[in-house]
Amino acid sequence: MGNEGTYVALGLKVWKAQIERADKLFGSLSSEEVLREIAPGRNRLLYLWGHLTAIHDAMLPLLGLRERLHPEFDVAFVSNPDKSRADIPSHEEVHRAWNVVNAELWNGFEKMPLSDWVQRHSAVSEEDFAKDASRNRFAVLLSRTNHLSYHLGQAVLALK
Amino acid sequence: MGNEGTYVALGLKVWKAQIERADKLFGSLSSEEVLREIAPGRNRLLYLWGHLTAIHDAMLPLLGLRERLHPEFDVAFVSNPDKSRADIPSHEEVHRAWNVVNAELWNGFEKMPLSDWVQRHSAVSEEDFAKDASRNRFAVLLSRTNHLSYHLGQAVLALK
Repeated sequence: MGNEGTYVALGLKVWKAQIERADKLFGSLSSEEVLREIAPGRNRLLYLWGHLTAIHDAMLPLLGLRERLHPEFDVAFVSNPDKSRADIPSHEEVHRAWNVVNAELWNGFEKMPLSDWVQRHSAVSEEDFAKDASRNRFAVLLSRTNHLSYHLGQAVLALK
Repeated sequence: MGNEGTYVALGLKVWKAQIERADKLFGSLSSEEVLREIAPGRNRLLYLWGHLTAIHDAMLPLLGLRERLHPEFDVAFVSNPDKSRADIPSHEEVHRAWNVVNAELWNGFEKMPLSDWVQRHSAVSEEDFAKDASRNRFAVLLSRTNHLSYHLGQAVLALK
């Protein structure tokens, strides 16, 4: 296996570091603070948090771990913009889902055999994967970690 | 070598994708637009761009590629906050430095032998590296890619 384990461990370490930053940032918000916009007229923190939860939830089937836990989050936090719907999950529901989804992901990451990381993710067909082997599970991990960093950069703007 | 090349190629692909996003975003700004703040009272786009350039420039010695090209960027874009100094590099100087630094990095990435990615980076001693082998060059690549994503998430807020 050579250094394969080193690369996977590094990818997981960077993922975990960003999750911990997000835990600290979002987890400490009051029910008023979570409704703050990141800039005037922009997304509220609750929307970003729900958005990240929905995208992470979708990683569960994408990485072959299990079916989604909260597919209902997509209509509130992915396919519609913030403030376009009244019936979105509450602060408590988002907080709980965020914790459960990320715990489930981490559980799956730790159990995944090393060689599975370079296997195709479930949104790419065997045929397309044969043409482009970079569409694998490790690529999903790296790109979702960057997606999380992208929105963390925005979320901090609402704080101070 | 097993799948080692696959992991390095994926790390480089994600880096390159974020660089291209940044090229498109910052590279198309007018000299007026580059002075826009990402939110009222926050950093200007020019500051973020210069900051990213300085941090990327510092990757050159960190990854053992060469000495820095623009150490003078640090005082303007790293060790002091935005709008605290009058004498910062101009729009044109930042644009040029951004292009040169990232081209030099990419050049080094392509030439780097695969096994060098899991070698220590230059800011960690041999002694400390022996205790924690995760402080290697691939870790620098992943963390700087996330740093870029973090600030890209902020920069887009100034645009629309």
